[in-house]
Amino acid sequence: MTTFTRNNGRAADQLRAVRITRGFTIHAEGSVLIEFGDTRVLCTASVEEKVPPHKRGSGEGWVTAEYGMLPRATHTRSDREAARGKQSGRTQEIQRLIGRSMRAVFDLKALGERTIHLDCDVLQADGGTRTAAITGAFVAAQDAVNKLLAAGTIPASPILGPVAAISVGIVQGTPLLDLEYTEDSACDTDMNVVMTGAGHFVEVQGTAEGAAFTRAEMDLLLGLADKGIQELVVLQQQALAK
Amino acid sequence: MTTFTRNNGRAADQLRAVRITRGFTIHAEGSVLIEFGDTRVLCTASVEEKVPPHKRGSGEGWVTAEYGMLPRATHTRSDREAARGKQSGRTQEIQRLIGRSMRAVFDLKALGERTIHLDCDVLQADGGTRTAAITGAFVAAQDAVNKLLAAGTIPASPILGPVAAISVGIVQGTPLLDLEYTEDSACDTDMNVVMTGAGHFVEVQGTAEGAAFTRAEMDLLLGLADKGIQELVVLQQQALAK
Amino acid sequence: MTTFTRNNGRAADQLRAVRITRGFTIHAEGSVLIEFGDTRVLCTASVEEKVPPHKRGSGEGWVTAEYGMLPRATHTRSDREAARGKQSGRTQEIQRLIGRSMRAVFDLKALGERTIHLDCDVLQADGGTRTAAITGAFVAAQDAVNKLLAAGTIPASPILGPVAAISVGIVQGTPLLDLEYTEDSACDTDMNVVMTGAGHFVEVQGTAEGAAFTRAEMDLLLGLADKGIQELVVLQQQALAK
Amino acid sequence: MTTFTRNNGRAADQLRAVRITRGFTIHAEGSVLIEFGDTRVLCTASVEEKVPPHKRGSGEGWVTAEYGMLPRATHTRSDREAARGKQSGRTQEIQRLIGRSMRAVFDLKALGERTIHLDCDVLQADGGTRTAAITGAFVAAQDAVNKLLAAGTIPASPILGPVAAISVGIVQGTPLLDLEYTEDSACDTDMNVVMTGAGHFVEVQGTAEGAAFTRAEMDLLLGLADKGIQELVVLQQQALAK
Amino acid sequence: MTTFTRNNGRAADQLRAVRITRGFTIHAEGSVLIEFGDTRVLCTASVEEKVPPHKRGSGEGWVTAEYGMLPRATHTRSDREAARGKQSGRTQEIQRLIGRSMRAVFDLKALGERTIHLDCDVLQADGGTRTAAITGAFVAAQDAVNKLLAAGTIPASPILGPVAAISVGIVQGTPLLDLEYTEDSACDTDMNVVMTGAGHFVEVQGTAEGAAFTRAEMDLLLGLADKGIQELVVLQQQALAK
Amino acid sequence: MTTFTRNNGRAADQLRAVRITRGFTIHAEGSVLIEFGDTRVLCTASVEEKVPPHKRGSGEGWVTAEYGMLPRATHTRSDREAARGKQSGRTQEIQRLIGRSMRAVFDLKALGERTIHLDCDVLQADGGTRTAAITGAFVAAQDAVNKLLAAGTIPASPILGPVAAISVGIVQGTPLLDLEYTEDSACDTDMNVVMTGAGHFVEVQGTAEGAAFTRAEMDLLLGLADKGIQELVVLQQQALAK
Repeated sequence: MTTFTRNNGRAADQLRAVRITRGFTIHAEGSVLIEFGDTRVLCTASVEEKVPPHKRGSGEGWVTAEYGMLPRATHTRSDREAARGKQSGRTQEIQRLIGRSMRAVFDLKALGERTIHLDCDVLQADGGTRTAAITGAFVAAQDAVNKLLAAGTIPASPILGPVAAISVGIVQGTPLLDLEYTEDSACDTDMNVVMTGAGHFVEVQGTAEGAAFTRAEMDLLLGLADKGIQELVVLQQQALAK
Repeated sequence: MTTFTRNNGRAADQLRAVRITRGFTIHAEGSVLIEFGDTRVLCTASVEEKVPPHKRGSGEGWVTAEYGMLPRATHTRSDREAARGKQSGRTQEIQRLIGRSMRAVFDLKALGERTIHLDCDVLQADGGTRTAAITGAFVAAQDAVNKLLAAGTIPASPILGPVAAISVGIVQGTPLLDLEYTEDSACDTDMNVVMTGAGHFVEVQGTAEGAAFTRAEMDLLLGLADKGIQELVVLQQQALAK
Repeated sequence: MTTFTRNNGRAADQLRAVRITRGFTIHAEGSVLIEFGDTRVLCTASVEEKVPPHKRGSGEGWVTAEYGMLPRATHTRSDREAARGKQSGRTQEIQRLIGRSMRAVFDLKALGERTIHLDCDVLQADGGTRTAAITGAFVAAQDAVNKLLAAGTIPASPILGPVAAISVGIVQGTPLLDLEYTEDSACDTDMNVVMTGAGHFVEVQGTAEGAAFTRAEMDLLLGLADKGIQELVVLQQQALAK
Repeated sequence: MTTFTRNNGRAADQLRAVRITRGFTIHAEGSVLIEFGDTRVLCTASVEEKVPPHKRGSGEGWVTAEYGMLPRATHTRSDREAARGKQSGRTQEIQRLIGRSMRAVFDLKALGERTIHLDCDVLQADGGTRTAAITGAFVAAQDAVNKLLAAGTIPASPILGPVAAISVGIVQGTPLLDLEYTEDSACDTDMNVVMTGAGHFVEVQGTAEGAAFTRAEMDLLLGLADKGIQELVVLQQQALAK
Repeated sequence: MTTFTRNNGRAADQLRAVRITRGFTIHAEGSVLIEFGDTRVLCTASVEEKVPPHKRGSGEGWVTAEYGMLPRATHTRSDREAARGKQSGRTQEIQRLIGRSMRAVFDLKALGERTIHLDCDVLQADGGTRTAAITGAFVAAQDAVNKLLAAGTIPASPILGPVAAISVGIVQGTPLLDLEYTEDSACDTDMNVVMTGAGHFVEVQGTAEGAAFTRAEMDLLLGLADKGIQELVVLQQQALAK
Repeated sequence: MTTFTRNNGRAADQLRAVRITRGFTIHAEGSVLIEFGDTRVLCTASVEEKVPPHKRGSGEGWVTAEYGMLPRATHTRSDREAARGKQSGRTQEIQRLIGRSMRAVFDLKALGERTIHLDCDVLQADGGTRTAAITGAFVAAQDAVNKLLAAGTIPASPILGPVAAISVGIVQGTPLLDLEYTEDSACDTDMNVVMTGAGHFVEVQGTAEGAAFTRAEMDLLLGLADKGIQELVVLQQQALAK
């Protein structure tokens, strides 16, 4: 079996260069530019002292996310969703995924009746925008929570532990970690995995783009994802320690 | 470890009563009422002799799906999406999933430049509407293809094999097959699995509603799903043989 | 004058086979599948313990209706209104008609500050969907009211009497009762009539599709409608007596 | 039986003062301000040298209408539909009615592949806006057709004869012709009738706002409407003769 | 330098015939038809005893404007914004301009917590619709305020002074006051100026449609605008004195 | 007269620190991050080889702009326009202004039948986003044009000269150049000026936020703007020379 050769001599189980820049913009309670190679996503966390209707009076807070892509983040320009008047199904799917992933590591009771909005805007896309968004949004959320703690607004952190995400896939028979755009376009199977720092699954979304995949392939992919996410969690902690 | 007790003495690895009624309505090329217990979904397949813009002139066809829920399919009435003026994120996510699942078993070249629209409308909901929709839509699609073959419109079937779907989840520590509504509401982990008749994965979508889940739990769930889908594929074939 | 010959030897003044199935779905307070020949409409009545803004604090309730058609209820597939993002003028016209017809037999004071939502969804269309919807919605509303009475929520029925509807029209010079689709398409004059059990008019909507119609023709059509509605009211009562 | 007393000593079977001003604005091919008492509607007819998709290549033309109400045409300001982003069900119902009424007196073949757009905008409302709109739109349409004839664009008039409309209703037991706003608000039964110059019905839309109405009442109302429409047709012809 | 010749022998610094008709419709607190030559705009002022959310509890009122154009106000029919489902960017720009211009001469504190809605609807367009709208809206607003004063609802007028607007532009090298449509279409530079009765600027919006314009040209245009607005303010006062 | 003191000892007639970073993202034909102090706008230019309908077959190209603001570009989070389903009036006003400003320095004939889309997305806002957008969009457009020239797609540059924009305003009686957010909020008069490199006006938009402004004040502001724009044009050329 021949092995697919990646750009820049990257190994099949190797992440792209990951850079996490905190404080990228000045107004938000958390503002993180995260880069997975050429993919660049700006993740901001905004704290609002009220909750959506379904949480009012519950004593619990809420964590939610929105996702967007600048029109020319992509190789060819795509329509601006605000001008078209609606978000695509893909956008909604991604922002729902980010929101669920963040809530999986939040104790909403401990957050109190307030909302953390995570806005993930793709400045430049080269595959893996949703996994970069989740990984960066966690760091932005941690920064926002730290501000709330420092201000004494909440007595203890509502964050239960880190969460990060990575894509894996099979391209020309080779299981790969952290697909870039050309790999993503060529892959038979594409899986996005969200895991906690403890190595447990929050979300697994696998899709056969071409041929259906076997249980053995799935096992290989989950193993790769596990490795990648462990590395991302370390990078998140390093960024937060700065 | 205590085991969760299901309604009607159902075993943890047991499907609900599945009924597949072909020809439920008269106009569509394929019209199937599928029931998973109290969940009832009407799946129709409509053949249209044209394709969407991205397929024009390609010689290939297209298979797409739409999903809806009657306002009072649910325990309490939900808003009518047509009146609200947009489909929810959940609806779009589900109809995209159904569409991808169907295309996974279609040779679009062999279909020729025509579209099969699969409309999956939930008449009554009790959990598992998306998996019932996929399982029923396949039967409706097969009926529509059989009409095209009978009419000589296409020389050979574009269907590569059966596809079906089931939900699995962990409720109070017990892995369960084919969740009904009360189980779905109570579960920590919820997974929807779409597989081919050959036992390969088309889609795996697992979500931790409560605590994140382990690899061991995931393995148990995938095993349960595999068993359920093999049974569904048999039921599809029996229905088509009538 | 030659007479138009109807399908299945139906007489000019004869209704199609009417079937009224109560309890068609399990969640709604009233759930009726009504069939006028091949036209099949699912009518559900949902009770909500609040009223729209214009009735708040009035001590009165509200009765309202929504209407929809599954995309493949018709001979050729029509667009899904939820996907298109708005209800057609025709849909709005019909649901306003159903709502007014129901309110004509309701004492809103006696209903108390609650709303009955009537959802009429066409599963299969063959002409006369709005008249079937009105006729079936009344039965669903009666079932919902009976539940409120049985629960002691209201002391006396707010329903003043039955209401039903039928279409009449002139096809090739022959006045016909209860038009099916092919007749409806061919008719010069089309009239929908809504009447109470006492034989009074709630709504009369006549339209000249081809030539304008005379007073004499109108008188014939109103007579036919009166006959048909008297029969429908009997069928409603028989269904409710089961 | 006591009789309802109308404003300004108007008899029960008397129209309000009707004024028809042709050439009210300068750009449109037909531009008519029609007044029924204090109700004032500007009706313009615009000729466009193309047809909507369903008529393309048919050799036939199309006649269509749109209806609007200025926000402060009414006693209290109503929302601007353009700002709200959609036309109400009432607006759509009315504009569909105007369109059907106009098409009833048009030979679309003789019109040729062009469209006449009738825009009916209510400047001031005091009941009967839709019937004033139909009556005025006919005059505007005739002016536009006369321009086409004068220019030699069409060899013969596609207009088969006049059409006009009036409202009738029963207020406190008294059948009244041409309801003004206070009467319309108080009436038990409200009927809009559209008839040709030959005295045939194009549309009859009767609604019981309060109690259902009897056949005898209906007969009285249709008689009143017939009288009123005959008078309106004379007024249309007088206006066109100027 | 040759001078551009205007229609009807109008001088370069001359306004078109301006007519201001108060009480044009009967329901609004202020209702003014303003005509700048063939441009005719109906401006109504409606008083509502509540304020938008951002003013609630502030003790201050609000003044806001909406603008619309009847479909056949123009040479060729334009789409109805209510039917298209949204207001164009141009419409929004204009109504924001009218609202700001009116608020510039209102003491919102003195108005008290109520809203004045100014609806400016173009019945006929021939250039300068936004400047006619502002000039007419002021008169309508004054009439509405006078009603509030007369009723004792407010003790003193919240209006600080008059405001009016005019367009100026350079056509074929000639600076012109009050452009009509053919001049507007041909001009290189188009400027709308809003000024108070005291001769101060409220808004200046200049746009180079063709070549960019010099400071000297701008000075000429501002001078012309000043002259025109002084004349308009006199005409407003004369109309209000009637 | 006391003079308003600016942050960081900035003089009244001094621009904030301006930084222009070309090639900020990799996919667009032109990609410029422009910073006016803390205001940061990403301007991309995308070339598309087709034109909108009104230019088809004309031999001319088109230049158009869209504007957006990331939700947390501002001090408090604002709604995402894509999620709300429409662009605000302010957004539309700004993107129309940017488009007109760019077209003022483009020879659309020389561009040929292609479109340049300028997307201006505000990453961080501190006043003057629209003027930064125009100034940066010009540099992005120049980069895109240079690519077309280098590729031989067009023989000569369609750009007639530079264009840039700046805001000026009067705060507490002091005329200021290049307002930052706190100044913008406090100012009585706010003017945005767009000028060519030759010192001619493309757009002047002055608004009295508080008191109306005099001709003398306007003259002072226009002088300040002129000075600022001359400096910006130099900075644009320096950036392009790198």
